[in-house]
Amino acid sequence: MFKEVIEEMKQRVYQANMQLPQLGLVKLTWGNVSEINREAGVIVIKPSGVNYKDMTPEKMVVTDLKGNVVEGEKLRPSSDLATHVVLYEQMPDVQAIVHTHSTNAVMWAQAGRDLPSYGTTHADAFFGSVPCTRQLTNEEVINQYEENTGKVIVETFRERNIQPTEVPGVLVYGHGPFTWGDTPKKAVENSLILDEICVMARETEQINHKISAIPQYLLNKHYFRKHGDTAYYGQS
Amino acid sequence: MFKEVIEEMKQRVYQANMQLPQLGLVKLTWGNVSEINREAGVIVIKPSGVNYKDMTPEKMVVTDLKGNVVEGEKLRPSSDLATHVVLYEQMPDVQAIVHTHSTNAVMWAQAGRDLPSYGTTHADAFFGSVPCTRQLTNEEVINQYEENTGKVIVETFRERNIQPTEVPGVLVYGHGPFTWGDTPKKAVENSLILDEICVMARETEQINHKISAIPQYLLNKHYFRKHGDTAYYGQS
Amino acid sequence: MFKEVIEEMKQRVYQANMQLPQLGLVKLTWGNVSEINREAGVIVIKPSGVNYKDMTPEKMVVTDLKGNVVEGEKLRPSSDLATHVVLYEQMPDVQAIVHTHSTNAVMWAQAGRDLPSYGTTHADAFFGSVPCTRQLTNEEVINQYEENTGKVIVETFRERNIQPTEVPGVLVYGHGPFTWGDTPKKAVENSLILDEICVMARETEQINHKISAIPQYLLNKHYFRKHGDTAYYGQS
Amino acid sequence: MFKEVIEEMKQRVYQANMQLPQLGLVKLTWGNVSEINREAGVIVIKPSGVNYKDMTPEKMVVTDLKGNVVEGEKLRPSSDLATHVVLYEQMPDVQAIVHTHSTNAVMWAQAGRDLPSYGTTHADAFFGSVPCTRQLTNEEVINQYEENTGKVIVETFRERNIQPTEVPGVLVYGHGPFTWGDTPKKAVENSLILDEICVMARETEQINHKISAIPQYLLNKHYFRKHGDTAYYGQS
Repeated sequence: MFKEVIEEMKQRVYQANMQLPQLGLVKLTWGNVSEINREAGVIVIKPSGVNYKDMTPEKMVVTDLKGNVVEGEKLRPSSDLATHVVLYEQMPDVQAIVHTHSTNAVMWAQAGRDLPSYGTTHADAFFGSVPCTRQLTNEEVINQYEENTGKVIVETFRERNIQPTEVPGVLVYGHGPFTWGDTPKKAVENSLILDEICVMARETEQINHKISAIPQYLLNKHYFRKHGDTAYYGQS
Repeated sequence: MFKEVIEEMKQRVYQANMQLPQLGLVKLTWGNVSEINREAGVIVIKPSGVNYKDMTPEKMVVTDLKGNVVEGEKLRPSSDLATHVVLYEQMPDVQAIVHTHSTNAVMWAQAGRDLPSYGTTHADAFFGSVPCTRQLTNEEVINQYEENTGKVIVETFRERNIQPTEVPGVLVYGHGPFTWGDTPKKAVENSLILDEICVMARETEQINHKISAIPQYLLNKHYFRKHGDTAYYGQS
Repeated sequence: MFKEVIEEMKQRVYQANMQLPQLGLVKLTWGNVSEINREAGVIVIKPSGVNYKDMTPEKMVVTDLKGNVVEGEKLRPSSDLATHVVLYEQMPDVQAIVHTHSTNAVMWAQAGRDLPSYGTTHADAFFGSVPCTRQLTNEEVINQYEENTGKVIVETFRERNIQPTEVPGVLVYGHGPFTWGDTPKKAVENSLILDEICVMARETEQINHKISAIPQYLLNKHYFRKHGDTAYYGQS
Repeated sequence: MFKEVIEEMKQRVYQANMQLPQLGLVKLTWGNVSEINREAGVIVIKPSGVNYKDMTPEKMVVTDLKGNVVEGEKLRPSSDLATHVVLYEQMPDVQAIVHTHSTNAVMWAQAGRDLPSYGTTHADAFFGSVPCTRQLTNEEVINQYEENTGKVIVETFRERNIQPTEVPGVLVYGHGPFTWGDTPKKAVENSLILDEICVMARETEQINHKISAIPQYLLNKHYFRKHGDTAYYGQS
């Protein structure tokens, strides 16, 4: 049964990885998706630098909760695995993580700015600004860079008192977006939404230089229309 | 025969809904199309939050003119139904309505600005600026939000004395576009045009910061070349 | 043989029209291509407002050199025919004309600015700035609007002493681009190039607000590398 | 065996050329790829101005190291061959070269600015700013223009002490990008990356007017994560 669980995770992680180039979120090999099963004690993640056309569910790499490869040793896991591990450790409600270099989200990450909630498209998925981390220091980059990337994300959410389940994504300064969710599919969907609201926000500012975020009551309305006990969007 | 009428409406509403992602106007499930038949006393609308690939004509939801589901009770109607109902009540010449979060129209809605008529592409379909509503108040959002969205659209057209048949679309502040027409197909076409003139207008302002709307006589010429008794565009 | 000539023209005009949506230059029915054969005394042009999926070579409309329909009377010619007729009369070296509302060229036309030659992509096809006409007057719009559109294009080239063969396109103020060439295929190619250099120029100005056109010697080099007796690009 | 070497080069050069329009980097015939084999004494390059749909591996042109055609004399080599020859002579570690007019890289070339390294997407492939050459002089354009284009690229790298292997691409002022690599495939990949970081950088500056390049330590980390003896990205 443990084996079945892992096979299903591989299938889901594979499918979600394949979605990334199809949705235009990833060029070349610039992205990775993982899923965790804390009870089974495993993380499944994309192998590093493998072309999408050569990928199969079998090539997904299985690690323990510390990121040590336990299966599929022929292929190295994504070089960003250590970031995923830190996020899974520190964000217990997160089940799946996606990292991309999607064009529009990278622009904001490179600009080093939080993404303001300028409209309901944003509010439907992210309950408030999507934060941009601080720049990593020299020391944080030289040693355990990927681990420290995870740590600065966690720090950002803690210091600003943001719930990862309510704002399922982040912009890493000078780098790009990470998003998460209950399933690999949902985490990919959040990547798609984040990229879309990044382009919307950028051009909103061009059209009206003085625009400000939508009022809190509209943010509340749209977020809770789709999330939590009061949700009434979609089929029950 | 009543049944036939509804079956045909379902087909048209289904086809129009399916057009939205194909035309690049909708990502995920962010859009909905409806059609009204006032004599038959019915509205047909997309179900809420159903994936496009899972949609069929049979899944379209049928309601009465107040928005009460009369058929297809297994699926909830689009959460924006109440907006459609208000528009149908207050705009008697409107037969079909489309709502999307299309990228370029959302940018203008988020920027909170009317869309000026900068050229003939605009004038061919919209007889003057496409208005942006005011922001909804806290009270309007907390209770009957979707209904109040319809009301603020109607208010906008009344206060500015705009004919919905002449300007078949609107930008809802901080949210996105609604368009309409004689048929679901025509309402979708107006969504496509609105999104296109939104991107054109945005970049027109970047290229020339001092540009102003086209003169009224050119607006008249192009609009009436395609609409009304004097139209001479297309096949008679 | 006359009949054969016309059949071939219909084929070419049809093929060129079909290229427009495939190249992303036209949405809905917003474009038209025509070809002239002055010896045979005919112009072949797209019918007005017909969907691309319903088009066939047989539906192309044949007119005399004044634009009177001589064949295919069941379908009206493009409403822009009168513009084409004026251009063919006043620009004897032009054999085919294309009109579109392609997104990037419309932006410049709406901005009312000439398109400067910022690089060799421009210089390879257009020997200098692509001019933007003046705004048409109220009288010019009310009567013989399409004819006057042709006249203001001719006026623009005459007053500025630009050769239509060297600058095979124009931006009509507040409207959009017309391009031309030796064949319908070449005229479509010039539409594609014009749209591409419009987006390049727009963003060039964003990246460097102080940029100016390339020097005349580079313009000369690139234009004559591809055109005239000194051309050495392509296969002889 | 010599013949086999050339056949394989033709295949690779053909495949790489065909990738350009598929990746959206080339419109019409605006691009070319070449490969050199210094031991065999040959360069293989795309023919000039041939449509991509008409191309075959057999149509690739074979020249000696000076650019004299030695095979395939029925077709002229790309008009940019002389630029490739100079680069191959002066950059001994370069095995393949790509030239395109890709939209976003041309914008920067036309703007006459170096492309700053605003993020890790840039740093993963280019170890520092991608330089923009100076403008060519009148004399350099009139005679041996293509050769002088190669020379100004070489001059740019020498004067600024940039290693072509570390920054595998350049923006030619008022013209467009050249990129290179160990193989035609890698050189095309660098064209894709260069175009992508050009659009990212452009919009990064729009979102934050005061942004500056990423710190050197982050540039080092990302570049050496993927290149050289310390690389740990991808499968070994």
